[in-house]
Amino acid sequence: MSSGGIFIWELLGTAVLILLGNGVVANHVLKKTNGHNAGTLFITFGWAFGVFAGASVAAPSGAHLNPAVTLGLAIAGKTSWSQVPVYMAGQLVGAILGAVLCWATYKLQFDDHPEPQNTLGIFSTAPQISNKVWNLVTEIIGTLVLVGWILLSPTTKLASDGTPNFGNSALGYAGVAFVVLVIGISLGGPTGYAINPARDLGPRIAYAFVLPIRGKGNPNWGYSWVPVLGPLIGGMLAALLYLAVSNLS
Amino acid sequence: MSSGGIFIWELLGTAVLILLGNGVVANHVLKKTNGHNAGTLFITFGWAFGVFAGASVAAPSGAHLNPAVTLGLAIAGKTSWSQVPVYMAGQLVGAILGAVLCWATYKLQFDDHPEPQNTLGIFSTAPQISNKVWNLVTEIIGTLVLVGWILLSPTTKLASDGTPNFGNSALGYAGVAFVVLVIGISLGGPTGYAINPARDLGPRIAYAFVLPIRGKGNPNWGYSWVPVLGPLIGGMLAALLYLAVSNLS
Amino acid sequence: MSSGGIFIWELLGTAVLILLGNGVVANHVLKKTNGHNAGTLFITFGWAFGVFAGASVAAPSGAHLNPAVTLGLAIAGKTSWSQVPVYMAGQLVGAILGAVLCWATYKLQFDDHPEPQNTLGIFSTAPQISNKVWNLVTEIIGTLVLVGWILLSPTTKLASDGTPNFGNSALGYAGVAFVVLVIGISLGGPTGYAINPARDLGPRIAYAFVLPIRGKGNPNWGYSWVPVLGPLIGGMLAALLYLAVSNLS
Amino acid sequence: MSSGGIFIWELLGTAVLILLGNGVVANHVLKKTNGHNAGTLFITFGWAFGVFAGASVAAPSGAHLNPAVTLGLAIAGKTSWSQVPVYMAGQLVGAILGAVLCWATYKLQFDDHPEPQNTLGIFSTAPQISNKVWNLVTEIIGTLVLVGWILLSPTTKLASDGTPNFGNSALGYAGVAFVVLVIGISLGGPTGYAINPARDLGPRIAYAFVLPIRGKGNPNWGYSWVPVLGPLIGGMLAALLYLAVSNLS
Repeated sequence: MSSGGIFIWELLGTAVLILLGNGVVANHVLKKTNGHNAGTLFITFGWAFGVFAGASVAAPSGAHLNPAVTLGLAIAGKTSWSQVPVYMAGQLVGAILGAVLCWATYKLQFDDHPEPQNTLGIFSTAPQISNKVWNLVTEIIGTLVLVGWILLSPTTKLASDGTPNFGNSALGYAGVAFVVLVIGISLGGPTGYAINPARDLGPRIAYAFVLPIRGKGNPNWGYSWVPVLGPLIGGMLAALLYLAVSNLS
Repeated sequence: MSSGGIFIWELLGTAVLILLGNGVVANHVLKKTNGHNAGTLFITFGWAFGVFAGASVAAPSGAHLNPAVTLGLAIAGKTSWSQVPVYMAGQLVGAILGAVLCWATYKLQFDDHPEPQNTLGIFSTAPQISNKVWNLVTEIIGTLVLVGWILLSPTTKLASDGTPNFGNSALGYAGVAFVVLVIGISLGGPTGYAINPARDLGPRIAYAFVLPIRGKGNPNWGYSWVPVLGPLIGGMLAALLYLAVSNLS
Repeated sequence: MSSGGIFIWELLGTAVLILLGNGVVANHVLKKTNGHNAGTLFITFGWAFGVFAGASVAAPSGAHLNPAVTLGLAIAGKTSWSQVPVYMAGQLVGAILGAVLCWATYKLQFDDHPEPQNTLGIFSTAPQISNKVWNLVTEIIGTLVLVGWILLSPTTKLASDGTPNFGNSALGYAGVAFVVLVIGISLGGPTGYAINPARDLGPRIAYAFVLPIRGKGNPNWGYSWVPVLGPLIGGMLAALLYLAVSNLS
Repeated sequence: MSSGGIFIWELLGTAVLILLGNGVVANHVLKKTNGHNAGTLFITFGWAFGVFAGASVAAPSGAHLNPAVTLGLAIAGKTSWSQVPVYMAGQLVGAILGAVLCWATYKLQFDDHPEPQNTLGIFSTAPQISNKVWNLVTEIIGTLVLVGWILLSPTTKLASDGTPNFGNSALGYAGVAFVVLVIGISLGGPTGYAINPARDLGPRIAYAFVLPIRGKGNPNWGYSWVPVLGPLIGGMLAALLYLAVSNLS
């Protein structure tokens, strides 16, 4: 696949993922919506099947949608290093676009919201208890499960041209949706499971510089590196684990 | 497939979809039901697996069940224009029939309801905050995700006679159910995600002219064109996006 | 398959279905359980995946588990009439056994329950608003969707020996679980969706004559024929619909 | 597969299962999490898709992850007795590791918890009403459904080298996840559905001897043998049932 193709497919898939993922939090947080206060199971289903929808769309490029996945696949030898920046650029631009589409979907609710300063959480994660070291640990463990699953599950297969395409099995992208669902349910308690640098940084950039939300709050740059670095470390550890065990028999 | 076949299969599939979709809202809204006030996740599961059931039944005609899908597939060159009116007619008649079956299922609860004037929402959508332009935007974005997914997902395949049949893959119609689930969860907050002109207009016609609900309310024709036009625009944009990217490699 | 084989597989599969279906209601209704008052979505998931588990186990006999399914398949020409009584006998005995296993699972909670006279609802259905005619209509429509889906869905296939085995497709018995889920969510409001004579009558027999629940209530024989007759009519109508449309092209 | 391979894959898969399963209970029980008090459906989804994730990872060794499964497969002649201790050792060590990872994920919440003496329930099961005999019965019935399903479902197939690999079908490990979901929903009310000796004993050992939770409570060794013995009896009964019926035709 050409660099242009990778860029466009990753952009489209990540935009769908973030539109739907940010969308469910907007539905839960904002008032005058049908899903106001619909709860944590509702939110985790939204993110999980947002991954399903976005990953299906991005199937031609292997549907990474996540720099931690791209990094893990590169270390594991399944994506060439020269393509890594193209993947990540498409993911970041797509994430910004998805956040903008989410804002447009809920534009009337944003205008009507009594506490516009408390809307960053719709777009980016924040810890329930702030402690950079242990917040990193939580994000590392969550991403280790995600990327480790992608690398080790028998549902992941290489397409004929060597592109990793973990949607080729019968369950398709439902498998990765189920894994994202359970990571959210089981490991999302402390930090809101970014487990994807583009998922957190792209919408934060959109919130800080793009979205015309009146009275919007601080983009919390002080925390912003945790949900970037943690997932990258988790993806790297998953690849090392994969290399250590994949020749076992 | 003959025009008569298309008409009947689309009618049957859409009737099942609307019976189940309207049914879950009736269960949630009406009193003296087992699902009274069961919540938004409950409602979105009902619509999602209503699509699963209806689409499985309508597999022979390609299971459009939705004029926005038919329009998108026609623009994308996957359905012949001459069949478009037949598809849409079957969908509209089926939607009216489905609403009637929903009423019959909950007949005792309708008779018993203390506020019969507030029952339109069981059948058709309404915005949480009324603003025609932004309500249109919300419906366009939701339908863009639905029809874009149908056109771009690798789970969509052409049947041997060229009929688009996105149930031929292993996940089958569970895939489109998952996408409808997440659209409802993530994008349904502001307008109740019609994302289908027949799903909204057919039950509205049934409510206005067919159903014998005593003391029933106004069918709100003033809003009725938004959940028709928005989805058609969304389906059209999805087809244009598909044509723009489908030759990328 | 021999009559003995059919009897045993249907008995085992229906016992699993009823153990799990009655079990989720016990968990919701009884006190001092982990699922007390867990809600309608919880209950509908229990019944749906109870069907998944029971149907997988009964795959060798085609996994009817339901006299309305057996009747519909016989009218549609997919099960021989001579086997119909064997299927139904296995289903009824299995349903009684499943109710007994449910009681054993929750024995301590039954002993501890402050209102033992209100425990029939764990085992058998009752209408929210009593009206024999319209309760029948509700059960007929629900079963029409179930058996119509089984007959019309492309996921239903004949096994090599002609036994109907709707688990042969890729989705397998997850498809029928999804349909039972949505019937419960969307059509279960008025009568509790028996949609299966054995599911209702077997546990009612167990409640009346077998289970040693101290202070147990009336088995409500006056209503008991509705959730038997309604599903049988629904299954018959589904078969007639199938015969009418299956040659359309 | 070599003994070393079996040990490592079972260890990894069980660690993932317990990390995710203990994780969802931590998210529900502890304060200052995103899933505090999220409810029983939330918890059962966490355990179910924790099984999905863990079993996918452990596919090379057949993904037992549970001594009751290993025992049942050995009695049924599908696993050699010489491998049984290796399977069980990997499962127990993996379960301890998973509990440690769960603690690390929620470390800040454990430190902050006002009732640290009430945290055993995050890791191991306890009965709602204590009665050793009937608690055993509940665990036996739950495990009978699990292992019986694994042995009887057509989704279970032998891999080419004879290793039982119930992930080879199209639904893959989603099937066993659905069964664990419904066991939790329907049979988990009285005892919290251990249905797996390693799932209960490993985290209990971690709680008693490894985890540095200040003020932690009693590991309740008095009950600890019930969720070990009950599942082993259930797995054995499932294998005997399988041997009795598998030649029926």
